[in-house]
Amino acid sequence: MGSPLLSDLATEIVIPVCAVVGIVFSLVQWFLVSRVKLTPERNPPSTGNKNGYSDYLIEEEEGLNDHNVVVKCAEIQSAISEGATSFLLTEYQYVGIFMIAFAILIFLFLGSVEGFSTKSRPCTYDELKTCKPALATAVFSTLSFLLGAITSVLSGYLGMKIATYANARTTLEARKGVGKAFITAFRSGAVMGFLLAASGLLVLYIAINLFKLYYGDDWEGLFEAITGYGLGGSSMALFGRVGGGIYTKAADVGADLVGKVERNIPEDDPRNPAVIADNVGDNVGDIAGMGSDLFGSYAESSCAALVVASISSFGINHDFTAMCYPLLISSMGILVCLITTLFATDFFEIKAVKEIEPALKKQLIISTVLMTVGIAIISWIALPDTFTIFNFGSQKVVKNWQLFLCVGVGLWAGLIIGFVTEYYTSNAYSPVQDVADSCRTGAATNVIFGLALGYKSVIIPIFAIAVSIFVSFSFAAMYGIAVAALGMLSTIATGLAIDAYGPISDNAGGIAEMAGMSHRIRERTDALDAAGNTTAAIGKGFAIGSAALVSLALFGAFVSRAAISTVDVLTPKVFIGLIVGAMLPYWFSAMTMKSVGSAALKMVEEVRRQFNTIPGLMEGHAKPDYATCVKISTDASLKEMIPPGALVMLTPLIVGTFFGVETLSGVLAGSLVSGVQIAISASNTGGAWDNAKKYIEAGASEHARTLGPKGSEPHKAAVIGDTIGDPLKDTSGPSLNILIKLMAVESLVFAPFFATHGGLLFKIF
Amino acid sequence: MGSPLLSDLATEIVIPVCAVVGIVFSLVQWFLVSRVKLTPERNPPSTGNKNGYSDYLIEEEEGLNDHNVVVKCAEIQSAISEGATSFLLTEYQYVGIFMIAFAILIFLFLGSVEGFSTKSRPCTYDELKTCKPALATAVFSTLSFLLGAITSVLSGYLGMKIATYANARTTLEARKGVGKAFITAFRSGAVMGFLLAASGLLVLYIAINLFKLYYGDDWEGLFEAITGYGLGGSSMALFGRVGGGIYTKAADVGADLVGKVERNIPEDDPRNPAVIADNVGDNVGDIAGMGSDLFGSYAESSCAALVVASISSFGINHDFTAMCYPLLISSMGILVCLITTLFATDFFEIKAVKEIEPALKKQLIISTVLMTVGIAIISWIALPDTFTIFNFGSQKVVKNWQLFLCVGVGLWAGLIIGFVTEYYTSNAYSPVQDVADSCRTGAATNVIFGLALGYKSVIIPIFAIAVSIFVSFSFAAMYGIAVAALGMLSTIATGLAIDAYGPISDNAGGIAEMAGMSHRIRERTDALDAAGNTTAAIGKGFAIGSAALVSLALFGAFVSRAAISTVDVLTPKVFIGLIVGAMLPYWFSAMTMKSVGSAALKMVEEVRRQFNTIPGLMEGHAKPDYATCVKISTDASLKEMIPPGALVMLTPLIVGTFFGVETLSGVLAGSLVSGVQIAISASNTGGAWDNAKKYIEAGASEHARTLGPKGSEPHKAAVIGDTIGDPLKDTSGPSLNILIKLMAVESLVFAPFFATHGGLLFKIF
Repeated sequence: MGSPLLSDLATEIVIPVCAVVGIVFSLVQWFLVSRVKLTPERNPPSTGNKNGYSDYLIEEEEGLNDHNVVVKCAEIQSAISEGATSFLLTEYQYVGIFMIAFAILIFLFLGSVEGFSTKSRPCTYDELKTCKPALATAVFSTLSFLLGAITSVLSGYLGMKIATYANARTTLEARKGVGKAFITAFRSGAVMGFLLAASGLLVLYIAINLFKLYYGDDWEGLFEAITGYGLGGSSMALFGRVGGGIYTKAADVGADLVGKVERNIPEDDPRNPAVIADNVGDNVGDIAGMGSDLFGSYAESSCAALVVASISSFGINHDFTAMCYPLLISSMGILVCLITTLFATDFFEIKAVKEIEPALKKQLIISTVLMTVGIAIISWIALPDTFTIFNFGSQKVVKNWQLFLCVGVGLWAGLIIGFVTEYYTSNAYSPVQDVADSCRTGAATNVIFGLALGYKSVIIPIFAIAVSIFVSFSFAAMYGIAVAALGMLSTIATGLAIDAYGPISDNAGGIAEMAGMSHRIRERTDALDAAGNTTAAIGKGFAIGSAALVSLALFGAFVSRAAISTVDVLTPKVFIGLIVGAMLPYWFSAMTMKSVGSAALKMVEEVRRQFNTIPGLMEGHAKPDYATCVKISTDASLKEMIPPGALVMLTPLIVGTFFGVETLSGVLAGSLVSGVQIAISASNTGGAWDNAKKYIEAGASEHARTLGPKGSEPHKAAVIGDTIGDPLKDTSGPSLNILIKLMAVESLVFAPFFATHGGLLFKIF
Repeated sequence: MGSPLLSDLATEIVIPVCAVVGIVFSLVQWFLVSRVKLTPERNPPSTGNKNGYSDYLIEEEEGLNDHNVVVKCAEIQSAISEGATSFLLTEYQYVGIFMIAFAILIFLFLGSVEGFSTKSRPCTYDELKTCKPALATAVFSTLSFLLGAITSVLSGYLGMKIATYANARTTLEARKGVGKAFITAFRSGAVMGFLLAASGLLVLYIAINLFKLYYGDDWEGLFEAITGYGLGGSSMALFGRVGGGIYTKAADVGADLVGKVERNIPEDDPRNPAVIADNVGDNVGDIAGMGSDLFGSYAESSCAALVVASISSFGINHDFTAMCYPLLISSMGILVCLITTLFATDFFEIKAVKEIEPALKKQLIISTVLMTVGIAIISWIALPDTFTIFNFGSQKVVKNWQLFLCVGVGLWAGLIIGFVTEYYTSNAYSPVQDVADSCRTGAATNVIFGLALGYKSVIIPIFAIAVSIFVSFSFAAMYGIAVAALGMLSTIATGLAIDAYGPISDNAGGIAEMAGMSHRIRERTDALDAAGNTTAAIGKGFAIGSAALVSLALFGAFVSRAAISTVDVLTPKVFIGLIVGAMLPYWFSAMTMKSVGSAALKMVEEVRRQFNTIPGLMEGHAKPDYATCVKISTDASLKEMIPPGALVMLTPLIVGTFFGVETLSGVLAGSLVSGVQIAISASNTGGAWDNAKKYIEAGASEHARTLGPKGSEPHKAAVIGDTIGDPLKDTSGPSLNILIKLMAVESLVFAPFFATHGGLLFKIF
């Protein structure tokens, strides 16, 4: 077996140091962004204008001297920021109640496993040893659940704050050219990416060390309790994604349907009463929701890996460094992403619009290549040559290079998913162009082609996921899967940076429009935004791919903990679980789509009412009543996020308690294999429609110009597709990956209860 | 154990007699339909007009004396009939080549199992006995494959012939009122229903008896070879559904997009060049495709039940009557449906438009109630009190009342699926009305609401299927599932009758429009057609529900034959199969949707070209060039049906040969649980959009009138939804149930080969 090269002490130091480095880097980026001033300067900026060529600018500078614009941008920014803050705080109050109730439920369910006894008991996996009482698991699981939820709230909230801090600054920088604006938007994304990745790691690391004070040598119990961290993170993420998704898309759909289609005014026009709600929505949905989501994935994959490691040779031999392998991978990820970020912001400069997408793509490639080396190093220094991994009751012998391959296959599968997503959603390639072309014959063919594109885009990602699963499962059972998921998420800081970049650019465009800045500024932010749509789709691809791996790993851990040896499809209990599980994503999507639709209808009516009753609104003489629209989105999302949230949170509890662990296993497998497909196709279909519309609007090629300009029949058809895609890509699609992860981690947390008291119905009959 | 009350001799007589009764009944119905003359009579009909009240007519008679109308209807009918015949014959030539190639493949694969040896060998399930050589299985499987394919071809072809024979007659009867037209359309549907159900049973029965001449006491080999019948039936059905579906929807979408949306001329207007192709499409897609599809389901569920029975006590003890239990259920079904039909055509009369849907619904209820009694009788007289059923290696003891419950639960689950489908697709209920209402805000909200409706409509059917599976699986393992599927299909004659009624009414309306008959005739056929949309959706619901059960039963039989004892989700081989299998329906749908979209684009261009270049076409002075549009649909469907067909047919072969039976099991389970959901949601979404449009057009309620009339903005939005729904409900949706059945039955047929030579890749590495 041998022991790792890295000593335990070094591990104890390296992890928090890397986390702190990440946080410091994030603060440095923040400082750089904050140098763009939102208060008008007394004297017009003099540095850049001293002579004609001291700053190399892509396009000529424009409107730099207009103080009013700066004031207006600052005003709009603070309106968006206030709206987003107030919504998130209200949302957190609602969800807070739910979380406390659920925390009590966790305590009661897990405490009841041994009748709230405070006596120590034989360990689950090694009955010769003595472990801490079940009540301790109940207490610490509840604590780590709350800790995960709070960290997730902070992640989302801080992400939103950063984004709303950055958007007007991006707009202002756009006056100087695309390159400057790009760097501001990207840096802001990086602030969020590094802050989330580093704080997630740090909190988890601290929690483990604190819990160890009580648990001591009982690592089995310690890491079982830590799993609550993942559950807390994902539960919050679910509400964040669903609530934020409904908010943003109700506003977006409502604003577009009346503004763009009926009144023929541009997107983000300040005359549109729903425009502030729309921009607030980008921040609470796409930014805060996505931040919570990826934090959840990260927390869960770490927990899944740790809980399996704790019952493998790492845990049994109390090999701390090897045990911390998942955390070391994440630490290395922070360093790798730090270097990668410099490539975008410092080593190269964007000089033309067409360089934006390649620059973002390069981020993915550079981080993946560097990380491959990073994983090799970690695997070499942190793992013994040979070790054993728990594999459904037996111990499987694994070599360190095999584990390297597991992490690596996940990492590279992520890159493949990213590229495929880009191919299907970027308007630089034929799939989106075909969809745009189908707008010639109207909205119906556009929708048919878009749906077909989404379905088709599932094929390669699924093969990539399947290969990762096969390789990592074969080498290292479910530990392999868990670390493959971690591999995919190891570059999370970069992933989040390029993902957050999209909504920031989108908002920057909105602010430019609302502040009445010139058309050219809007064109620059639109170019940033088009690339952002693609990167958002790539980010969702990563989120879904990693969710599939994470939930499979959690599922494996659940099966082990629930002490079932096989999940045989050809038993009635499992099969009905499988088919009902495969149905859940549809049920969930039906709820969220309908919610967006209904809220959008209300929004449309309100916007129409304002246009019809407020005199001078269309002419720009009167101000619309933004607050009513914000209230419609807020009320709708708070009310409508509860049923889908309850469906996901209660299903494992009900199935486990009444039908038992076999049926629950079926449900988990069914929802995983079915949900992953809908999630990928929904998010790519939506991304493709959005970019097909942008393709026609931009008119950058001969072909695109035959379809345009704005307001032509093909363009109208494209707008309809874009609107349909909104709830698919930003509400139901991305929520689905939380659905599959959350049900798996919840099952794992409650596994001790289900194993003891589950399957009531079958026990009675 | 005891022996059944029904003697073997009685069984030998009862089954063919019932089949012949069904065929005779079908001929009687045909005779009744044929009394509506398509040649103008010398004297105007005098009977009905002698006095004002001798015939009770719902609406006053109209245009009965217009000879020209009759001549014109006859002309149009013969044009449609010729178009459909010529397409089907061409299609069969293409598919015929594929079928012969596949038959050779079957022979080679199965023959190679024992190296084409002609020596007898020990039986698979009872190694002490001697069975016929593997070469015999190869020969007879190939024969029964061809037999199934030919029967399927005949089913589709005859169905099409009947439908095209009936449509103009329905139009002419509509002059006398809704009631008369309804009876004609329904009787024609019944001709098809009974002919298919009875001939399917008869051919299978004769094949079994002929094969027995060679096989003698080797029932295991006999029924293994008979499975080819199901494979042949389903393979044909796949091409029929896909080819026909592309044909009909390319024409329909193309005709609507130019005619209704751009040129603002009514549906089925003779000026529209695609109108003949559209009406031909209804017959080759909805009628011939659906006939082949349900025949395939029926053949497969019978084969699945028979193959399991042959290795259970029925087969081991050579208990012929009990062995024929599945066929006896079908025989009873024919008698029950015969009585049920009389309720619609003779016992009651339709007197108002609003009675149409209830009359069709009553058909479902009556047949289900009567059939429950029928099943009880058959279970009582044809089964021993106790018997054993093969259950993955062991024999499970089953009582006859338990088997009754298995069949019954399938039957009633079918009824529930039917009602739920009706609720979600009929414009009498709130779901479709909500979708119609969402058209107020345009096509985008219509599509969002429609997709949400489709997703939601999956919930109850899946629970119904899950309960059936649980009950029947628990009582009688996979034999239970197979007979539950048979239970759901036992009323197939009635199901097909009400299903075929829809396209016949649709065509009748088309002919009325083309023959220039009065607006009131068209209103009457439209009323028939609206009910037909719902029954078509119900029919698809049955097809999907039964397909789920059938493919599970076949899957179970495959697993037994492939000699694997468990299909454990938590092994890498199975899991990658599961997730890739769940992806296949998306891949398949992407292909078929794209095919329809591309073909529709071509059609739109051609129709536009004709409108622009043929002078006087819009004014009705010139005739359009129907033939070119027919050719576009024909070419597109023949070319485009090959790739999706190949995907379905080759996947089991490739996976089984290279990855082995475990991965193939995963693929089957994955495609089953995922495909069922997409199929249900696609077909209900499409049905709902179609009826939302009809709801606005009919303007039968206060609410509907606020959305209309034809040509209003909400109506235009509804037309877009309807067009998007076309490929969903008539091409990709219904083809998916063939996908899941076909892959399962193919795996079962090739199981001997896979068990011996499969999994090459894993054997090499």
